[in-house]
Amino acid sequence: MFYHEKRLQYFTPPTTPDPIYAKKLQELIGGPMGEMTVMMQYLFQGWNCRGPAKYRDMLLDIGTEEIGHVEMLATMVAHLLDKAPIKLQEDGAKDPIVGAVMGGTKPTDVMMDIMAASMSPKHAIVSGGGAMPEDSVGYAWNGRYITASGNLMADFRSNLHAESQGLLQTVRLYEMSDDPGVRDHLSFMIARDTMHQNQWLAAIEELQSDGFEETVVPKIAHEYGKNEYAYQFWNHSKGTDSAEGRWSKGRSMDGKGQFTYISDPEPLSPALEPPQPDPRLHGTPKSPAAQKTSDNPVKNLVDGVADTVNQIIPGK
Amino acid sequence: MFYHEKRLQYFTPPTTPDPIYAKKLQELIGGPMGEMTVMMQYLFQGWNCRGPAKYRDMLLDIGTEEIGHVEMLATMVAHLLDKAPIKLQEDGAKDPIVGAVMGGTKPTDVMMDIMAASMSPKHAIVSGGGAMPEDSVGYAWNGRYITASGNLMADFRSNLHAESQGLLQTVRLYEMSDDPGVRDHLSFMIARDTMHQNQWLAAIEELQSDGFEETVVPKIAHEYGKNEYAYQFWNHSKGTDSAEGRWSKGRSMDGKGQFTYISDPEPLSPALEPPQPDPRLHGTPKSPAAQKTSDNPVKNLVDGVADTVNQIIPGK
Amino acid sequence: MFYHEKRLQYFTPPTTPDPIYAKKLQELIGGPMGEMTVMMQYLFQGWNCRGPAKYRDMLLDIGTEEIGHVEMLATMVAHLLDKAPIKLQEDGAKDPIVGAVMGGTKPTDVMMDIMAASMSPKHAIVSGGGAMPEDSVGYAWNGRYITASGNLMADFRSNLHAESQGLLQTVRLYEMSDDPGVRDHLSFMIARDTMHQNQWLAAIEELQSDGFEETVVPKIAHEYGKNEYAYQFWNHSKGTDSAEGRWSKGRSMDGKGQFTYISDPEPLSPALEPPQPDPRLHGTPKSPAAQKTSDNPVKNLVDGVADTVNQIIPGK
Amino acid sequence: MFYHEKRLQYFTPPTTPDPIYAKKLQELIGGPMGEMTVMMQYLFQGWNCRGPAKYRDMLLDIGTEEIGHVEMLATMVAHLLDKAPIKLQEDGAKDPIVGAVMGGTKPTDVMMDIMAASMSPKHAIVSGGGAMPEDSVGYAWNGRYITASGNLMADFRSNLHAESQGLLQTVRLYEMSDDPGVRDHLSFMIARDTMHQNQWLAAIEELQSDGFEETVVPKIAHEYGKNEYAYQFWNHSKGTDSAEGRWSKGRSMDGKGQFTYISDPEPLSPALEPPQPDPRLHGTPKSPAAQKTSDNPVKNLVDGVADTVNQIIPGK
Amino acid sequence: MFYHEKRLQYFTPPTTPDPIYAKKLQELIGGPMGEMTVMMQYLFQGWNCRGPAKYRDMLLDIGTEEIGHVEMLATMVAHLLDKAPIKLQEDGAKDPIVGAVMGGTKPTDVMMDIMAASMSPKHAIVSGGGAMPEDSVGYAWNGRYITASGNLMADFRSNLHAESQGLLQTVRLYEMSDDPGVRDHLSFMIARDTMHQNQWLAAIEELQSDGFEETVVPKIAHEYGKNEYAYQFWNHSKGTDSAEGRWSKGRSMDGKGQFTYISDPEPLSPALEPPQPDPRLHGTPKSPAAQKTSDNPVKNLVDGVADTVNQIIPGK
Amino acid sequence: MFYHEKRLQYFTPPTTPDPIYAKKLQELIGGPMGEMTVMMQYLFQGWNCRGPAKYRDMLLDIGTEEIGHVEMLATMVAHLLDKAPIKLQEDGAKDPIVGAVMGGTKPTDVMMDIMAASMSPKHAIVSGGGAMPEDSVGYAWNGRYITASGNLMADFRSNLHAESQGLLQTVRLYEMSDDPGVRDHLSFMIARDTMHQNQWLAAIEELQSDGFEETVVPKIAHEYGKNEYAYQFWNHSKGTDSAEGRWSKGRSMDGKGQFTYISDPEPLSPALEPPQPDPRLHGTPKSPAAQKTSDNPVKNLVDGVADTVNQIIPGK
Repeated sequence: MFYHEKRLQYFTPPTTPDPIYAKKLQELIGGPMGEMTVMMQYLFQGWNCRGPAKYRDMLLDIGTEEIGHVEMLATMVAHLLDKAPIKLQEDGAKDPIVGAVMGGTKPTDVMMDIMAASMSPKHAIVSGGGAMPEDSVGYAWNGRYITASGNLMADFRSNLHAESQGLLQTVRLYEMSDDPGVRDHLSFMIARDTMHQNQWLAAIEELQSDGFEETVVPKIAHEYGKNEYAYQFWNHSKGTDSAEGRWSKGRSMDGKGQFTYISDPEPLSPALEPPQPDPRLHGTPKSPAAQKTSDNPVKNLVDGVADTVNQIIPGK
Repeated sequence: MFYHEKRLQYFTPPTTPDPIYAKKLQELIGGPMGEMTVMMQYLFQGWNCRGPAKYRDMLLDIGTEEIGHVEMLATMVAHLLDKAPIKLQEDGAKDPIVGAVMGGTKPTDVMMDIMAASMSPKHAIVSGGGAMPEDSVGYAWNGRYITASGNLMADFRSNLHAESQGLLQTVRLYEMSDDPGVRDHLSFMIARDTMHQNQWLAAIEELQSDGFEETVVPKIAHEYGKNEYAYQFWNHSKGTDSAEGRWSKGRSMDGKGQFTYISDPEPLSPALEPPQPDPRLHGTPKSPAAQKTSDNPVKNLVDGVADTVNQIIPGK
Repeated sequence: MFYHEKRLQYFTPPTTPDPIYAKKLQELIGGPMGEMTVMMQYLFQGWNCRGPAKYRDMLLDIGTEEIGHVEMLATMVAHLLDKAPIKLQEDGAKDPIVGAVMGGTKPTDVMMDIMAASMSPKHAIVSGGGAMPEDSVGYAWNGRYITASGNLMADFRSNLHAESQGLLQTVRLYEMSDDPGVRDHLSFMIARDTMHQNQWLAAIEELQSDGFEETVVPKIAHEYGKNEYAYQFWNHSKGTDSAEGRWSKGRSMDGKGQFTYISDPEPLSPALEPPQPDPRLHGTPKSPAAQKTSDNPVKNLVDGVADTVNQIIPGK
Repeated sequence: MFYHEKRLQYFTPPTTPDPIYAKKLQELIGGPMGEMTVMMQYLFQGWNCRGPAKYRDMLLDIGTEEIGHVEMLATMVAHLLDKAPIKLQEDGAKDPIVGAVMGGTKPTDVMMDIMAASMSPKHAIVSGGGAMPEDSVGYAWNGRYITASGNLMADFRSNLHAESQGLLQTVRLYEMSDDPGVRDHLSFMIARDTMHQNQWLAAIEELQSDGFEETVVPKIAHEYGKNEYAYQFWNHSKGTDSAEGRWSKGRSMDGKGQFTYISDPEPLSPALEPPQPDPRLHGTPKSPAAQKTSDNPVKNLVDGVADTVNQIIPGK
Repeated sequence: MFYHEKRLQYFTPPTTPDPIYAKKLQELIGGPMGEMTVMMQYLFQGWNCRGPAKYRDMLLDIGTEEIGHVEMLATMVAHLLDKAPIKLQEDGAKDPIVGAVMGGTKPTDVMMDIMAASMSPKHAIVSGGGAMPEDSVGYAWNGRYITASGNLMADFRSNLHAESQGLLQTVRLYEMSDDPGVRDHLSFMIARDTMHQNQWLAAIEELQSDGFEETVVPKIAHEYGKNEYAYQFWNHSKGTDSAEGRWSKGRSMDGKGQFTYISDPEPLSPALEPPQPDPRLHGTPKSPAAQKTSDNPVKNLVDGVADTVNQIIPGK
Repeated sequence: MFYHEKRLQYFTPPTTPDPIYAKKLQELIGGPMGEMTVMMQYLFQGWNCRGPAKYRDMLLDIGTEEIGHVEMLATMVAHLLDKAPIKLQEDGAKDPIVGAVMGGTKPTDVMMDIMAASMSPKHAIVSGGGAMPEDSVGYAWNGRYITASGNLMADFRSNLHAESQGLLQTVRLYEMSDDPGVRDHLSFMIARDTMHQNQWLAAIEELQSDGFEETVVPKIAHEYGKNEYAYQFWNHSKGTDSAEGRWSKGRSMDGKGQFTYISDPEPLSPALEPPQPDPRLHGTPKSPAAQKTSDNPVKNLVDGVADTVNQIIPGK
C-alpha cells in the first residue's frame, strides 16, 4: 500500500517556458529508459521477488522513489509549457515596423512561430498543457519496456543497464539546455541516477557474496551447455580487428574457460531439407503434385488425421 | 554488406513435433530478450559506433552471428510444427471403442485436441507452419526493444543484461522440454550465450582499461550532479529491511563517496502552485472566473499573444 | 513524493493455485480498463491539474490507492501461479493403471496437461511465476490507455467510464471463479470500484455546482457550434427503430434545444473535386499529361516553389 | 451492409493550405479520442448489442454517421496539404534582395522553411498528400482504443467520455486556427458532438428508466461486494484537502450508503510471505540451498510433477 | 457520407457454437490481412485519390462493401461464442459415474474444459461474447497495416497482395472447420475475395492502358536510377541455386534491360571512417582524449556552435 | 549462417549534414515499407520456404542483400547527423549586428534554430547521432509489417507490393533533396528496387509456369467458393462511375467467369436476431427480466453448465 506527500522530492522551476524542451524532456518520462520504466520495473521486480527480504524491500523503496521522479518531471513539463504559443502568429500580432518597412522578421516572432510549429501537438490538443505518458516523439510508454524475471542477478543487471542509459540521456538533456532552473533540477536527478548505478553494482556484489549466483547467470547454465563452444569468439567477417580485444584471448571472465578466436568459422550443421507443408494449409511444396485438390475431401481429412496421430504421438 | 551460407551454425531436429512448444519457443525469436533483439541491437550498435575499430568489428561479428541464431530457431519452429493438428478431431476419427462403450477418451485423442486448441493460431492461419517475428503470446517484435546509444559502456551493459535475461529464458525452456533433439539444440545456444555474457564482461573491462569510462557512466555525470545526494539510499517505506544491504553503508562502488541510509526521508521541495491554464485550451482553472468566453475573441487573442511574447522571450 | 507500506490494502490467498485463472486476471492488471490504467490516469490527472486543491488532492489520493491495487493483483497472480505445471506431463508420470489397462485418462492428468498447454507462456519463461504489465492475452499495457486533458469535467467522465468497465470486468471474473479466496479478494475490489463510481458521480456534481462546467463540456462549445445541427438525430439506416428513444424527441439534456429526428438525411456539401497532386510526389493525377518528367528538373522545381509561395502565403 | 453517397455530410474548404495544421488535425482522425475511435466503437457496440432494437439501431446509425466524419476530416487534410512545401527552399528560390543586401530573411521564406521542416514527413513520403490513420504525432490508431462490452450502460458511459474528450479537442483545434474555412467546418463538427453528448446522456437516462441498470453498473455488484468498504474515501496522503469534496460526506450517489472519510487509512492485510519459486525456473529463492542442481534431473522432475499434482488438484 | 442496411450482405449461422474457432476467426477481422485492413485501406485510398472518378468511385464502393464484411464476421463470432463455457467445470457438474467409478473422463467434460481454457479471455471478460478489433492472438488492429500512397498503381498492387493473403487465410480457416454453416458462410467470402483479386488485376491493366504507369512503378524511376545496376541479380550466398530462375537471365520484365547473374558480388564502396561524435552527446570517440570535460563549458559551447555553423550552412 | 564484409554495397556521403533530412530518411529504414521490412520479410519467407531450392535460395540472397541496405541507410543517417545543432542557439551566438541594429535575423541563425527544433529528438537523446529502428515520425518498426505465408505466389505478390511502395517512397525522398551525395546514393537504391520489382514479376511468372498456382491464389479457392458471386462488381454507392472500368465487364482475369455490374445491390441475408447474453457476463439482454440475480447462485450455475453442455456438444 502506498501514501502520497504533496511536496516533491526536489524541484526547481525553469527560468523561461520552452515548449520544445518540454517535448524533449518527455523522453525521460515515457521513453524506454525513462522514469516510468524504472518505476514500473522496480515495483514489478519487488512484487515478483521471492528472495530475501532485504532485496524485496530495497526494490520497493527505489520503485517508490521513482514514482516521485515521474511526478517531478511531469511538473517540470507543465512549467515548461506555461504560456506556450499554440498557433502560428497572426500577421496583425507581428511587429508592424520591421514587417512592413524592411521585409524582415523580428527574432521573437520567428521563434514564436518555430515553437508553435515544433512543439508536441499532444501538449496542446490532448493534455492541455500537461505531461503525457509517452516519449519525445509521442510514442506511448508500454509494458514491454520492463524486465522482472524473478532471478535477481539477471534483474539487477537489467537495472544497471537502465540506470546507465537513463543517466546518459539525462546528461545529454542537461547539455541541451542553458536554463539554470532546468539544469539545477537535472543536477539532482543526475545525482540520484549516480546513486542508483552504485546501488545496483553493490547489489550485484552482495547477491554473489550471498551465494545466489556466479558470473554467468543462471549458474546452472554451465551444467546444461555444450561448453566446448562456450568460450569461442566467432569472427563472422572479413578482417580480424575483433581479434584485438580481451574477449578473444586469455582466461574467460567466469574463470571456467579460455577465450579462443575462431577466425574462419564454418557452420556445424549438415545441409537440411525442410519438412513438406500440410496440404490443408496450401503452402508451396517441392512439387505441384503434392498440392491438395478437394475432390475427395473426407478421405483426405481422415487420412490426414490418422497420419498425424501416427507421427505425433510417440508409442501410439 | 552480408553473405549467406546455406548450412546452419548448428541444428538438431526435434524427436517429435510439438506445436505447443513451438509457440513457447517464439519467445526466444521475437520476445524482448530474444534473438531478433540481440541481432538488431548489435547491428545498430555497430553501425552507430564511432569508437575504435576493434569494438565496431566485434559488434558486427556478433550481430552477424545472431542473424544465424534467428535462422536456427525459425528452422526449429518449422520442424516442431510439422504435422500439427490444425483442428479439433472429428468424432469419426476418434477411437470408436473407447468412446462408445466406456464414455472415456484415449490419451492420444485428448492430446491432439489440446494441441489443436492451444497452439498459436498464427502458426496455421498466417505462416502456414513457419516461425513468426513475434513472442510466445503473439506480440510483435518491435524496434523499441533495442538499445544503441553511441556510448559503448552504456551499451555493453545493455548487452550484458540482454544476454543474462536471454540465457535465463533459454534455460527455462530447456527445463520445459524432454525432447532430446530440442535439448541438444538448446545446449548449443546455452553455450553461445555463456560466451556472450563473458564477452560483454570482457568488453566492459577493456573499455575501462582503454580509458573511456569509469564506474558510473557517463563519467561526466560526476561533474554535473549534486553529489551530496549521489550516495544516499532513501528508505521510502516503513521498516528498514533495506538497511541490511551493501548499498546502505561503506564505500560507494565508484570510490567517490560513502553510502548513507536515510531512514525517514523528507521531500526537499517547498509546496508548489501549479501554473494557470491558457484559457484557449479550456482546462479547469482555480476559479470559473478565469474561464474564457468568446464575446470579444479578437481582443482576447491579441492580448494573449502579446502576453505570451512578453513572458516567453527573455530580454524582449 | 511517495511512501510504501509493506502490508497490502487487502488480501486473501486463493485456496488452490490456478495458472489459467492467473492469465485471465492479468486483464485487471494490464488491460485497457485495468488497475494500471486507473493508477496512471489518476496520477497524471493529478499532476496536470491546475484547478482547486480539493480536486487535485483527491485525484492523487485515489491514484495512490490504485498503485496498491496493482500490488494486490500482482500478489494474487504470484499465488495463483505457485506450483504451476510448466510442461506437458511425461508418460511416466501419468497414472499407469488407467492408461495401460483402459486406454482412458485420469482427470487430474488431463487437467494438468490442459493447464500446461493453456497458461500464459510469459508466466513461466519471462516472469518466472510473477505478474506481467500486460493483459489477459499478453498485449502490453501502454500509455495511450490513459486520459488526462486538464479539463476536469471531461476527465471525471473518463474516470466514471473506466470504473464502470473495470467493475463490469471484475464482476465477470468473479463469476468465472469458484475459489473462495479469489472471490473474497475480488469482493473487496468490487466494493472499492463501487465507491469509485459513486465518487466520480459526486465529483461531476460538485464541479458543476462550483460553476466550472455545464451539461455539454466544454461549455464554450455552444458559442462555437452551428447550433441548428446540435440537436438532430440523423437516421443513417433504413428503418426507424432508433426513433423510439429519448434521444429523438423532447427537450435536449442540456436544456438548450429540442431533439428532432431526421429520418432521411441528405448530405449538406456539394460535390467536390479533389486537389491535384504535386508532381514531385508521383501520385496519380486526373490525366497522365500532368505527370512529371524530369527533363528539366531545375525549371520544374523553381516554378513549383514560386507557385507554392504565391498560393500559400496570403497577402504575398 | 453499407452504402456510400459521394457528397460529404458537410464541408468547407480551408482558405489557405497549412500543412502544420494538417498534422494537428490528424489527432481528430486517428487519435485515441478521434473519429476513427467513435466510428469503430459504435459499430462494434452495435454488432455486439444483444439488447432492444432501438439501442442497436441507434448505435449503428451513429456509427455510420461517424464513418462520414472520418471522410470529412480526411478530405480537409488533403486540402490543407495542397501545395505543401516538401523541402527546405533552395537559396536560389529565396528573395535575392533581402537575402543579399540585408542579411535578413523574408517572412514568407522563413514560413516556408518552417512548414517544410515541421509538417508530418508521412504526409509527403507515405501518403503523397493525403490523410493517415494515425494521430498528430504519427502514432497509429489501434483497436485497443475502443470499448464494446455488451453492457449498454457501461458502454454509454464510455461514449459520453469519448464525446466529451473529442469535443474538447475539437474546440482546442478551433482555437488554434484563424482560417475561416477551417473554423466553419469545425463548427459543424462541434454541433454534432454537442448532439452526441446530449444523445448519450439521454440514452443513459432511457436505459435506467427501462429498468436495465442503476447508478452503479453492473447492478449485481452490490450483491457481490464487501459493502462496508463501498462508501469510504481513503485519504492516501498527508493533509486533508480531499475532505472538502462531496465524495467524502453525505448520502452516496446510488442512495445505498453514506460517504465517510478515512483520514489515516491502515492496510487491512497481515504481513505476507511470498511463495517460493519453482526450482526449474531459476528464480532467486530465500536461500541458495533451494536452488536446483541438475545432478539427478529425472528424479527431480518426477518428484516435482508428483508434488504439483498433489497440491493443485483438490480431492486427489 | 454513408448509410446502413440492417440485413447482412450474406450470413449462415454456425451449426454448433465453438469459442475456439471464434478466436481463430478473429484473424479475418483484425489481423494484418483481415477485413478491417481492406476496409480502411480502400476507404483511405478512395479519400486520398486524386485520379479519374472511375477509380475513386470503385475504391469507395469496395471499401463500403468491406465494412459489411467486418459486420458479417463480427456477427459470426457472436454466434460462435453463444453458450461458451466461461470457466472450468466444477466437479459436481461432471458426470459422477465415469468420474468416480472408472477414474476416466467423459469426452464432453474434457472438451468443455479445453474450451474454457483455450478460448480468448477477451471474449468473456472484455466483450461479453462479442467480436474484438484484434487478431487471433489478441493483438490490436492498427493503422500501420494499411497502405494508401496516392499512386494508384502502387496501391492496386498492395490491394492484390492483401486479397491474396486474405483469401489464403480464409481457405485455411475453411479447412480448419467441419461446421456446414461456417463453411457455407466462408464460401461466400471466398467468392468475393476471388472477385477482388480479379478486380485488382483488371484495375492494374486498366491503369496501364490509360497511360498512367508502366511495369516499374513509379515510371520516373528509370530516369533517376543508376540503370547499370537495375537488372543484376546479386548472389549473396554460397552456391548458385538462385541462378536457375527466370530472374537471372533473359529480357527484364519491363523490357528495358537484360537480367544478369552476379555470382560473386563485391561491395562497391571503399572503406569508410565514421564521423566523430559531438562531445556534448557523450558517445564513445576514437580516443578518450576527444571526450568532453566541463571545465570550460561556455567556451566549449560557443566553439561548438561556431564550428557547426561553419560546416552546416553552405556558402556561409 | 551469415558473414559480414566491412565495406558497404554502395555509399556516397552527403555534401552537407542535414538533421531534418535524416529524420525523413528514417522512413526508408524503419517504416512499414522500409528496408527492415523487406530484409525481415525475405529472410522469414526463405526460412519458412518448403518449395523448390531455387526459390528458397533466391529469397535468402535478396534478404541478405537487404541487410546491407539497412546498413547503407544507417550509415547515411549518421553522416547527415554529423554536427547537428542539438539546441536552440544562445543569443550570444547569434550575429550581433543584424540582431541589434536591424531587428532582423540571419538566415543561418534561423536555419540552425529550425533544425534544432525540428530534428528528431531521438537522434540526439537516444542514439547520440545514429540511426534508429523506427520510421520518420519515430514509430517503432514491428514484426506485423512482414508477410511470410508459406505460399510463394501470395508472398511474391506481397514482395511486389513492398518494392512498389518502397521505390515510390525512395523517389519521393530523391525529389525532396538537392544534395548531390544523397541523390547519388539514392540513385543506386532506385536501381536495386527497379531490379527487385522486375525480379518478383519474373518469379510470379516462373511459379505459374512451374505449375504451382494460377491467377487466383490459392488455386483451390475456385473449388470452395460460391462462384456465382465470384465475378460480380457490387456498386455500393449512388452513381455509377465505377461501371466505367475493366472490372465491371468482359472476361474475368482468371478466364473462369464474366464480370457483371450489380448497380443496386441488395443484402442476401434475412433479418437476424442476435443471441441472448450469458447472464453471468452481465451484458444487456432484450429484457431486464433476463438479468441475473445472485439469490441462488449454485442452482444458476449448475443449470447454466448443463444447458451449455446440452447445446454445445453435438450428439450428447
